[in-house]
Amino acid sequence: MIKVYVLYPNNSGATFDMDYYLTKHMPMVGERLGAALKAMTVDHGLAGGQPGTEAAYRVITTLRFDSVDAYQKAFMPHAAEIQGDIPRFTNIAPTVQISEVKI
Amino acid sequence: MIKVYVLYPNNSGATFDMDYYLTKHMPMVGERLGAALKAMTVDHGLAGGQPGTEAAYRVITTLRFDSVDAYQKAFMPHAAEIQGDIPRFTNIAPTVQISEVKI
Repeated sequence: MIKVYVLYPNNSGATFDMDYYLTKHMPMVGERLGAALKAMTVDHGLAGGQPGTEAAYRVITTLRFDSVDAYQKAFMPHAAEIQGDIPRFTNIAPTVQISEVKI
Repeated sequence: MIKVYVLYPNNSGATFDMDYYLTKHMPMVGERLGAALKAMTVDHGLAGGQPGTEAAYRVITTLRFDSVDAYQKAFMPHAAEIQGDIPRFTNIAPTVQISEVKI
């Protein structure tokens, strides 16, 4: 089992339309990825670990798949549409990584 | 509902003993946090989002609580013990943030 992490850094000057993200972007992503997508999470950064510090990431999203292969097969046909939608809700370039689920 | 993210950057020269982490550290954390801890995840970075790139984070762990207050009440009495265990499995200083669960 793997997760694709999409981390949006909390840069100064960053904009992020959470309403569009939750009601338009993520539902579209879920529809395009179909049954290959086993679960998704979206978390909104509130604060850093030390008192008075800011969260490093404005938003952290995860998408769970059975395997890297299953992710690539589901994502690649829709990559242009999904990535092309990003400027509609943020000016942040997200950091993406693939992780293996341990727990 | 909130999640505490603990992100271990994938620095060059970084060491991380996943076996110790999964069999000693996280079980100890789970025991100390008790019923306040609603769920935990541990994911091991495999690759970056672009072909041939490395994962930004070696390990990403999340701990879920009902509220920031519930987290602080559970964590503070054990902070020294939990943080003092970190050098036993890694030389990485983790990035910590608190996020609000949206999905």
